[in-house]
Amino acid sequence: MTLTALTGATRGYSDPRLSPIVERLDDFVAADPDYSFQLCAYHAGELVLDAWGGPHLSADSLIVPFSVTKNTIGLSIGLLFQRGILNPDERVASYWPEFAAKGKQDITVRMLLSHQAGLPQAQPSLSWAEVFDDHLGATALARSRPLWHPGSAFGYHALTIGNLASELVFRASGRTLREFYEEELRAPLGIDFYLGLPPRLDERRVPVLPIIQPENEPPAAWSSPLTAVAMSMSGPPVDFANDEASWRFGHPSGSGIGSARALARLFAATVTGLEGAPPLFEVDTIDVLSQQQVHGYDEVLGQSDRAHSIVFQKPTKSMPFGGHRAFGHDGAAGAFACADPDAGLAFAYTVARGPWPGGADPRAIAIAAELGRTLNA
Amino acid sequence: MTLTALTGATRGYSDPRLSPIVERLDDFVAADPDYSFQLCAYHAGELVLDAWGGPHLSADSLIVPFSVTKNTIGLSIGLLFQRGILNPDERVASYWPEFAAKGKQDITVRMLLSHQAGLPQAQPSLSWAEVFDDHLGATALARSRPLWHPGSAFGYHALTIGNLASELVFRASGRTLREFYEEELRAPLGIDFYLGLPPRLDERRVPVLPIIQPENEPPAAWSSPLTAVAMSMSGPPVDFANDEASWRFGHPSGSGIGSARALARLFAATVTGLEGAPPLFEVDTIDVLSQQQVHGYDEVLGQSDRAHSIVFQKPTKSMPFGGHRAFGHDGAAGAFACADPDAGLAFAYTVARGPWPGGADPRAIAIAAELGRTLNA
Amino acid sequence: MTLTALTGATRGYSDPRLSPIVERLDDFVAADPDYSFQLCAYHAGELVLDAWGGPHLSADSLIVPFSVTKNTIGLSIGLLFQRGILNPDERVASYWPEFAAKGKQDITVRMLLSHQAGLPQAQPSLSWAEVFDDHLGATALARSRPLWHPGSAFGYHALTIGNLASELVFRASGRTLREFYEEELRAPLGIDFYLGLPPRLDERRVPVLPIIQPENEPPAAWSSPLTAVAMSMSGPPVDFANDEASWRFGHPSGSGIGSARALARLFAATVTGLEGAPPLFEVDTIDVLSQQQVHGYDEVLGQSDRAHSIVFQKPTKSMPFGGHRAFGHDGAAGAFACADPDAGLAFAYTVARGPWPGGADPRAIAIAAELGRTLNA
Repeated sequence: MTLTALTGATRGYSDPRLSPIVERLDDFVAADPDYSFQLCAYHAGELVLDAWGGPHLSADSLIVPFSVTKNTIGLSIGLLFQRGILNPDERVASYWPEFAAKGKQDITVRMLLSHQAGLPQAQPSLSWAEVFDDHLGATALARSRPLWHPGSAFGYHALTIGNLASELVFRASGRTLREFYEEELRAPLGIDFYLGLPPRLDERRVPVLPIIQPENEPPAAWSSPLTAVAMSMSGPPVDFANDEASWRFGHPSGSGIGSARALARLFAATVTGLEGAPPLFEVDTIDVLSQQQVHGYDEVLGQSDRAHSIVFQKPTKSMPFGGHRAFGHDGAAGAFACADPDAGLAFAYTVARGPWPGGADPRAIAIAAELGRTLNA
Repeated sequence: MTLTALTGATRGYSDPRLSPIVERLDDFVAADPDYSFQLCAYHAGELVLDAWGGPHLSADSLIVPFSVTKNTIGLSIGLLFQRGILNPDERVASYWPEFAAKGKQDITVRMLLSHQAGLPQAQPSLSWAEVFDDHLGATALARSRPLWHPGSAFGYHALTIGNLASELVFRASGRTLREFYEEELRAPLGIDFYLGLPPRLDERRVPVLPIIQPENEPPAAWSSPLTAVAMSMSGPPVDFANDEASWRFGHPSGSGIGSARALARLFAATVTGLEGAPPLFEVDTIDVLSQQQVHGYDEVLGQSDRAHSIVFQKPTKSMPFGGHRAFGHDGAAGAFACADPDAGLAFAYTVARGPWPGGADPRAIAIAAELGRTLNA
Repeated sequence: MTLTALTGATRGYSDPRLSPIVERLDDFVAADPDYSFQLCAYHAGELVLDAWGGPHLSADSLIVPFSVTKNTIGLSIGLLFQRGILNPDERVASYWPEFAAKGKQDITVRMLLSHQAGLPQAQPSLSWAEVFDDHLGATALARSRPLWHPGSAFGYHALTIGNLASELVFRASGRTLREFYEEELRAPLGIDFYLGLPPRLDERRVPVLPIIQPENEPPAAWSSPLTAVAMSMSGPPVDFANDEASWRFGHPSGSGIGSARALARLFAATVTGLEGAPPLFEVDTIDVLSQQQVHGYDEVLGQSDRAHSIVFQKPTKSMPFGGHRAFGHDGAAGAFACADPDAGLAFAYTVARGPWPGGADPRAIAIAAELGRTLNA
């Protein structure tokens, strides 16, 4: 398939079947001169859409997509499952004995990685220095009693899942999650998405612009007694997206940095196959990663109809990004990436200034689902 | 109690205390010349209402009530529990070793039979030929990884629960569910409801008429990413209610065939006692069958406030058919049958063309509850 | 801190920082000449508010606060955990072998005490004589099959949790819950709240006045098929709050009697410390008691957004009485008491005639939360 070079407000290349989607992107750019995005999709291992637009982002821009970074956790964990280094049904404490303290002895890898462990915050609260450390945050969490009885509920471990997953990977493999991702996925697959930006690439970095609350718009209705608890670390505030300390470290929960091209390519290489090569993951690894673990009310976000597989988000009525085997992860400022194995789709989207009130940009969710339908029609 | 012969639009016989209900049935018939029903109830083992009306159904008509057929699964399972042949807390794999594959080793009989196993569809999807086979569908399901982590959620296994339950019964008893039901319930109790219609009765069969979507009425708001997945088998479409291949086989999930009289008699004989004979089931068997196993959001139907005991549906706020020990099952085209042990009630209802948008006819749910109150006032 | 003597409609003493709250109480009294309350709060172990008002209650009045009494269960259980006499993860049957009957062998202490056991009523229903007996009610419950599969759901065991908890305490410690509370908490800490009112204090008792349903107000929308089942004991009706048989016995589920002063002092002595003495509970005991066990739909009350730790209620969006480590319990006629360890707050409130439709008086919930904010500003 030869892609067509785009000539409108949207720049890049597209499979001709996708012109209605490209026109929609043109409309988005026309409607808001500040709107800036990257959008990339592979179908059956071939690039079908590589588009960008707006004043803030080009094809090669690197931007922090917040929790879209968590896709690197999920894919690393998938590879560790496939290699038999981690077992989803094993108790976390069998890899990490100190984790057994304070009623956590029966928490499994599966529970920990689907936000069921009750550890969205340590007791007492973590400092930012502990969060941005390969072991200190995890050590404090291992000493804490869960805020809910493990397995009785789930709630988004917005920051702590990165510390917890990384320590688990370290105990099982001898490498932190950042090291494992770098050595086993990023470097060998040639992925332009980094957990820790190398200084030689600094000039390609684009800052995340703050979401603007519309005038007379109330704050988002959600939130729970735990929302602030999970996000409030002790010590001076940190700009997770834009402070150099954050993206230079590359926290697996949310301060990885890269392009939509890179994230779509990463999902293609692992899940759908890439440019004639079979996917890195076997069918059953994909089934394990796509199996829903929790669905319903999120104790931390205070929202209903949230669903996770191991690490990843699953499509729901309120976030219908794909078929029942699809999985992916959004970010607080609008970005989103996913794979849909039945549709043969790998998809990623970044945005420099996401729409109010945050979370996955609904425009991206709609396009991901439409790509799956259009390319399989 | 001598029953009164009915003289209005509703035909049949009624306990005089039930004349308000009979008048209501007359009104239903008067309001819609197409409306056709059978309704039968026993109280304390005695027939109290045996009514029918409309152009399509007579007292002896045999009609496919879709998932009302699942009551035959639940009652067969109850008898297997009572005889000690099946144990609800045993792992399915202890009867059926192949079932342990792909993370299903810890699924119990209780979980499997209350829609918690995550197997509303096989991976890849079943063919209709596998569905209508005593073993092939079950074999494919045993090879599949659950769509959700078993026990983390529930979702209506609309078709597959019949294949799964039948194989489980076969492994435990040496007989398929259809054979067990025929030999242990239908034949000995003289029940005019069949899992597989004998050709000699073909002339009594009445087809199910399609539900009519009102003009300008949107589709039902429910449905989830899994609704279509659970109902979409590979191969040419099958009319589950009306194709001979379906009712001749008698799929335990939904293509049994018989009359409301038969279904009410079946519940009376097993749960409340019949014509002076004690019920087949002991009190504790009834408590086991009436114990709620799941309540809340159904992952497949995309509906809230759904509840199941083992196999059966339980009364909820949105489906208030009886007291807290009642159990039964509805069908996609309006039919419904249940028992309420505390009310001493056995109830069944069929309808030739159910009301939009499908599921238990609300008229039948209301009458079942009212019968319980009226007959115990 | 010297407290100011109050001079308005509200009588008592207050920390000057709390004058906005006192003014609000004055307004409540001015708006309704029948409104009568006691309200008491400790901060960091010191009395900060000791207020009362209205014609029916004085500072020393003793009143039945219905299920606010359950706080005595929770605090007694906490002490038994801390002393190693009870283990929350042990099976109930290991202390109480008869409890294992009818599928209850795997119910843990934690599950039983967070309303997950499916025993809001016995089968057949308890008599009031069994309810008001230290062992008979528990014996009947031990013989019963749970109404839902244990652990699959939760529902308020409005009355039976007292019988169940007391028998469990008796089996583990040799003392009924009433005896354990009297000997280990009430007497040594000098708490003016009684499980069984001593006759010498009878003259201080004030009856609970019935809640008045506003004209043209419909009944509360909640309720489920189990609401009536849980509250309907066999035999003549009992006025749980006002019949001497009830408050003389002092049922741990709801007929203890005392003052708001006493309940606030009890929470201060155990959770936040009192007048310079450290709290009776270690930090981890508090974490165990504050850990959420269940959250969501209550099968008995038919309400969503209910949450419990072990015995206690937890703050939710719909009942926001404190921070994420707070716990307490309300009563059917408006009373409420809680502790918030992070805020250093111990709080109690009684009311002679609570507002329609019952449950915690929203005025008290709002004041509890505001006290925590104001005193830590």
